[in-house]
Amino acid sequence: MLDKVLSRLDSNLDNSLEHLFELLRIPSISTDPKYKEDCRKAADWLVNDLKSIGFEASRRDTTGNPMVVAHHPGPTKDAPHVLFYGHYDVQPVDPLNLWEDDPFDPKIKQLNGEKVIAARGAGDDKGQLMTFVEACRAFKKETGTLPIAITILFEGEEESGSPSLQPFLHAHKDELKADYALVCDTSMWDADTPSISIALRGMVSDEIIIHGADRDLHSGHFGGAAANPIQILAKIIAGLHDENGHVTLKGFYDGVEETPEAVLKSWNALNRGPKEFLGPVGLSIPAGEKGRSVLELVWARPTAEVNGISGGYEGEGFKTVIAAKASAKISFRLVHKQDPAKIRKSFRDYVRSQIPADCSVEFKDHGASPAIELAYDSPLVQLAKKALTEEWHKPAILAAMGGSIPIVGDFQSFLGMESLLVGFGLDDDRIHSPNEKYNLKSFHKGQRSWARILTALANK
Amino acid sequence: MLDKVLSRLDSNLDNSLEHLFELLRIPSISTDPKYKEDCRKAADWLVNDLKSIGFEASRRDTTGNPMVVAHHPGPTKDAPHVLFYGHYDVQPVDPLNLWEDDPFDPKIKQLNGEKVIAARGAGDDKGQLMTFVEACRAFKKETGTLPIAITILFEGEEESGSPSLQPFLHAHKDELKADYALVCDTSMWDADTPSISIALRGMVSDEIIIHGADRDLHSGHFGGAAANPIQILAKIIAGLHDENGHVTLKGFYDGVEETPEAVLKSWNALNRGPKEFLGPVGLSIPAGEKGRSVLELVWARPTAEVNGISGGYEGEGFKTVIAAKASAKISFRLVHKQDPAKIRKSFRDYVRSQIPADCSVEFKDHGASPAIELAYDSPLVQLAKKALTEEWHKPAILAAMGGSIPIVGDFQSFLGMESLLVGFGLDDDRIHSPNEKYNLKSFHKGQRSWARILTALANK
Repeated sequence: MLDKVLSRLDSNLDNSLEHLFELLRIPSISTDPKYKEDCRKAADWLVNDLKSIGFEASRRDTTGNPMVVAHHPGPTKDAPHVLFYGHYDVQPVDPLNLWEDDPFDPKIKQLNGEKVIAARGAGDDKGQLMTFVEACRAFKKETGTLPIAITILFEGEEESGSPSLQPFLHAHKDELKADYALVCDTSMWDADTPSISIALRGMVSDEIIIHGADRDLHSGHFGGAAANPIQILAKIIAGLHDENGHVTLKGFYDGVEETPEAVLKSWNALNRGPKEFLGPVGLSIPAGEKGRSVLELVWARPTAEVNGISGGYEGEGFKTVIAAKASAKISFRLVHKQDPAKIRKSFRDYVRSQIPADCSVEFKDHGASPAIELAYDSPLVQLAKKALTEEWHKPAILAAMGGSIPIVGDFQSFLGMESLLVGFGLDDDRIHSPNEKYNLKSFHKGQRSWARILTALANK
Repeated sequence: MLDKVLSRLDSNLDNSLEHLFELLRIPSISTDPKYKEDCRKAADWLVNDLKSIGFEASRRDTTGNPMVVAHHPGPTKDAPHVLFYGHYDVQPVDPLNLWEDDPFDPKIKQLNGEKVIAARGAGDDKGQLMTFVEACRAFKKETGTLPIAITILFEGEEESGSPSLQPFLHAHKDELKADYALVCDTSMWDADTPSISIALRGMVSDEIIIHGADRDLHSGHFGGAAANPIQILAKIIAGLHDENGHVTLKGFYDGVEETPEAVLKSWNALNRGPKEFLGPVGLSIPAGEKGRSVLELVWARPTAEVNGISGGYEGEGFKTVIAAKASAKISFRLVHKQDPAKIRKSFRDYVRSQIPADCSVEFKDHGASPAIELAYDSPLVQLAKKALTEEWHKPAILAAMGGSIPIVGDFQSFLGMESLLVGFGLDDDRIHSPNEKYNLKSFHKGQRSWARILTALANK
């Protein structure tokens, strides 16, 4: 049965590309209200496509862009049941002049000897979500049904902060609950090696604005006597880390666990040291905590990073001013059981303790989410690992991720579901940038990978 | 004799205003090449006016705006000889919509119960330089000559960095050399109290740009492993001062002298403590070096101040980026015998020592000038102090200045001349801002003050 489905995916590739191109031609940019109608169109296109595969599918309007929800009961009443998640909205395309082709006129192109699908959304996330839809279509065509029960949830606001998602999950808990969630919005380890993401760092982001004098001052008249907000800010930032790269905030490491030796060993075996990890971006020396590998630093350790700083005269030339204010955007990546609320409080307490009595500080909360940890050794992960390894002829890597995918936390806390994060993107897909692409091989073997995973779930 | 001259200045005030208004109507903005012809016109106007007083005056063209040079031999061959300096160029007028009146259509207005001359350049520096010219005119009219030998140097590029000034001083050393230089481009202590500026801080300005990765990085993927230029910069800035506010650079205090007790005492008697000095700008606690008065801090102590900082994402919202670079503009105010070149080198050595091996730093030199110290007890200062005190019926203050007037250093180093800095501006004259003004009292009593000072110099 699987063989037939795989054969059909091979022979049907051109057809599946035509489908994808139709979806890619709809400029469903979610951050720009100008494209609201296009987002609706993309949702409708998906509803119709899922109906043609036998799903009971509908567009669900929200105060933002609509959700697409679809259900297929599978072959039998007691079949396993998964929720598949993806998003149909895409990033804006500016600066348009850096694109080699129209971002919404998809094309197959040659790039470094590989065929790629060039278009906005090809890699993030339309191409990825369609790998799953095409696998379903092949099952339906070959067998008249799907191998398991499947609920699909596509959202249209992932690139603009998903404002409607949590309320929607709350309101449709029962409808969306399944045995597992499958998420296709991540990358492979490299072009030949599949990967399952098993840990995601959380994040706390905060902005601080330090106010000194009630106006910009002349540094000749006031220099040496008036508080300088930039210098107060620099001292605060410098004090966030000690000489070993440890974050100094009180209680910061509460809930942080040491990574098991065996896991560290498996990461070390991946041969991604400072040279391989930092070399491509022009660096060579791991910053941050001393005595840990770069993969441990980005996958399993918490951080404090300044993402932006601003104050005083920033133009050409020189102006001898003491600024009235200075500001910084600071984020903390969290791991394991670190508590976002406690960390924000500890940070703000520290900042307040550093402000002179005649100055003041203002904070802006830019959101928070806890870290996510999936079980390395869960049956779901083991099953997917085996299926991926069979397809790619290389053992699938169990990778942590330095970044965050908040939906995974929501599935866990709202719906009590374990998520499986499998994706076929590559680091050079230029998602969020001009000339986004998705390798044709990712699109094709991605479909085959899902066919194998669904089959394995059916036979569990 | 002096009485007659003073009476003439009183009765001639309307006439002297008409003269000043003619000059104020010429929009001699030096930074904007569009006004080059107007700068020439202002120079020609001054040449003609000085000729009418008996000066041998001429316009001296430069590669920028012309100088005006004028000579009067005075009454006898062995008369004392002074060089008077001022500038006829003015600041731009943007934003024009904030002006209550046309900046180049001067008017007498009432402001807080005082008559003021409202126009661009009224206070900086056309009104000030004309106080001296009017004093000369009155002497000429009353006595047929001037009380001492006078050379006048007016420049037209003071508001745009004086690029032609040093070459001109070099080329005309012999012609411009006098016993003393008189400079009228400073302020009074307050509206009723005259002031002589006897020390000016010097300055070294530098910009540093720290480069990390060759592109902006995602802080999720790289945070904790990649160098963060903003954090390196913050550490550098934080390390510039110790916990007592001392600058930590090696050799920074070489050449800094302690201010004599008597001088400190006289400053303390001025009653300008933290409340008076910092209160008006919304501050209350002296920053910088501990254990020193605010006036000592800004008049007699060196500083390190960050004037601007920039890096990463500075817009609305939040972007989890690790910036490829971060930059800061930093200036040092110098006192006494501090060597600008040594301080720049010490600073750059320190910065380089803080840069990780896989990052780099770039420096931009934004200029330097040493501190200027005039003798508190020189006969010239004592004579001027007595003359000013007689005119204003309040003892003239010997004030230091936190800022810099580079010309004074040039007179000292190129022409070996002591300078006397006397001016009649007020802190609220809004020079460089919309609605610039010069108090009519400053214009009138300024003329009378120069008449007294010239008489005192003649009788020395």
